[in-house]
Amino acid sequence: MAAAPVDLPGAVVPAVLTPVRADLAIDHDAFAEHCRWLLAHGCDGLAPMGTTGEANSFSVAERTEALERLVAAGVPAARMIVGVGCCAIPDTVALARHAVELGVGGVLALPPFYYKNVSDDGLYAAYDQVIQRVADARLRLYLYHFPQMSGVPLSRALVARLRAAYPDTVVGLKDSSGDWDNMKALCEMLPGFRVYAGTERYLLALLRTGGAGTISSTVNVTCALAARVAARPDAPEADALQERLTAVRDAIERRPPAIPALKRLVAERTGHEGWRYARPPHLPLDDERFAQVKAGLQALDFALPGG
Amino acid sequence: MAAAPVDLPGAVVPAVLTPVRADLAIDHDAFAEHCRWLLAHGCDGLAPMGTTGEANSFSVAERTEALERLVAAGVPAARMIVGVGCCAIPDTVALARHAVELGVGGVLALPPFYYKNVSDDGLYAAYDQVIQRVADARLRLYLYHFPQMSGVPLSRALVARLRAAYPDTVVGLKDSSGDWDNMKALCEMLPGFRVYAGTERYLLALLRTGGAGTISSTVNVTCALAARVAARPDAPEADALQERLTAVRDAIERRPPAIPALKRLVAERTGHEGWRYARPPHLPLDDERFAQVKAGLQALDFALPGG
Repeated sequence: MAAAPVDLPGAVVPAVLTPVRADLAIDHDAFAEHCRWLLAHGCDGLAPMGTTGEANSFSVAERTEALERLVAAGVPAARMIVGVGCCAIPDTVALARHAVELGVGGVLALPPFYYKNVSDDGLYAAYDQVIQRVADARLRLYLYHFPQMSGVPLSRALVARLRAAYPDTVVGLKDSSGDWDNMKALCEMLPGFRVYAGTERYLLALLRTGGAGTISSTVNVTCALAARVAARPDAPEADALQERLTAVRDAIERRPPAIPALKRLVAERTGHEGWRYARPPHLPLDDERFAQVKAGLQALDFALPGG
Repeated sequence: MAAAPVDLPGAVVPAVLTPVRADLAIDHDAFAEHCRWLLAHGCDGLAPMGTTGEANSFSVAERTEALERLVAAGVPAARMIVGVGCCAIPDTVALARHAVELGVGGVLALPPFYYKNVSDDGLYAAYDQVIQRVADARLRLYLYHFPQMSGVPLSRALVARLRAAYPDTVVGLKDSSGDWDNMKALCEMLPGFRVYAGTERYLLALLRTGGAGTISSTVNVTCALAARVAARPDAPEADALQERLTAVRDAIERRPPAIPALKRLVAERTGHEGWRYARPPHLPLDDERFAQVKAGLQALDFALPGG
C-alpha cells in the first residue's frame, strides 16, 4: 500500500455540526459556509458526519450527497476525516469508498453498534470486512472508540490487532471515552498511531504524549482558542491556555444536550436561525436552556469569534 | 383511518433468523423455506428483519429485496410484522412504506438508537416523523422496547402518548426488556393494545393478562411447543407446557450468543450448512459451544420438530 498522504489533518479538528432546514433536509450552503469559517479560524482539519454531525440520523444517500456538495463548494477533501461507521457493513463500505474516491484525508469508523456484548473477534471481522471490501490503498481509517454512545467499546488488544494487520490503513483512533489512561496507553503502545481525544480537555496533554490532537464537538466554537494551545504545546503559556479551553468546554458540556446548544451558538454567530433545527431524536434547544449556556460562557468572558 | 385488518398476526411469532451465504449475502431460498416451515409448525405470524434477523447488519436495499423475495416465494405478507427501525428517519420511512405497500400485517420499529439519554419529546418526534412521512392509513406500527440492546428505553408515558395520538396506527409493542411488571402495566394501561413479550417465557402469563403473545428469537426452534401453550391458555395443562417451554428457552439463552446458536440448530434441522454463517459482528458458533447448547436441549429431551 502507498505511504500516508503528507497533508493528514492536524491537531485541531471539529466534529462538524450539520445544519438542517425546517423540513429537516441538510442545508448544504450553510454547511459549506460553516466548514470554511472553521478552517479560517484555527482548524487544521474537519470531521464532518460524526456523532456531533448527527451522521447516523441521515441516510447513506444524504451523507454522500452532503460530502459531494461540500467538496464542490471548495471545502478541501484532503483535510477531512469523514464519519462512515454504520451498523451494516455494506453501508460503511459504501460511505468509505465514496469518501476515498473524493480524496478525503481519512475516514472515522464506529464499529457496528446495534449488537452489544459482541466478541473482539466479531469486531475484528467487521473492520476486516470493511477494509477488504473497500479494497483501496488510499483508505486511511480511524477507529472510533465511544463506548458511552455506541455501547460497543474497542479494547486496546483489538486496536493493536487491527493496526498490526493493516499498518498503512488503520492509521489512528478517536477516543471519546473520556478515559485519559486509555488515550495515554494507546500512544505508548502504538508509536506513530494517530490518537485523537474526543474532547479538547486533553488536547495539550495528548500532544505532549505523542498524540495527534482532538476531534471534538465543542471545537465548533472553541477552535481559535484550541489552535493557540496546539500551536506551541511546549510554550510556558500553553498550560494557562489549556486551562481556559477546558473551562469553556466544561461550560458547554455541563449543560446538555450539547448538539442543540452548539447549533444555537452557531445560529447566533451567523445570524442564520435555521441553524437551530436538529433531526429527531434531537430537538432545538429552548430559550431557557440556551440562556444558561450563554451565561456560562459569559462568566468566562468567552465571546465567539465572528460573533 | 381504516380499521385494523382482521388477519393480524397471532400469539406465536418467531423473530425470524436470516440465513446468509459464505459471502454474507442473504440466502433468499433458505429464508423463504424457513418461513414456510415456521408457519407449518405452529407459528401464527412471522417477524422477519428484527434483532434476531440481524436486520441492522443489512442495508435498506438488502432488507427491501429480502422482503420482496419472501412475498414472491409465497410467504404471506399479511402475517408478517417486519422490522423497520433504523437510526435515520428516512431509512425507517423507506422500509415502513415498502412493507406497507407489500401488504404486511405490521411493522416493528425501534426508536433511533445511536444517541442515548434523549428526551421523550425527542423520541416522540422521531416516531411522529415516521408516521407522518409514511402517510398511509394501512400502517400498523408496533413499538420496540429493548433497552439492553438499543440503549434507548421507551417509557410507558411515551407509549401512551403515541397510542393516544395515533390509535389506529400505533397498535402494539414488543417488550424485550424482560421486565414482566412493565408488560403487565402496559396491558392494564392500554386495553386493546397488542403487547408482545420478547421471550416466550411470559407467553402464558401475558395471554392471561390480555397481551398478544410473544415475538421471540427462540421461537425459531420452540414454535410447536409455544403453539400448544397458546392454543388453550386456560386449559389445566397449559402451565406444565409453559414450564417446559421456559426450560427450553432457558437452555438456549443460558449459552450465548443466541443468534449463532439458533442458526446452527436450524442448520442441523435442515441439513443446510450455510445456515451457520452470520454477518459480523456475529460469527458462526464453534463446535464446542454448539455441543453445550445441544447437551442442554438433550437434557430436556427436546428434539427439534423435523430434525
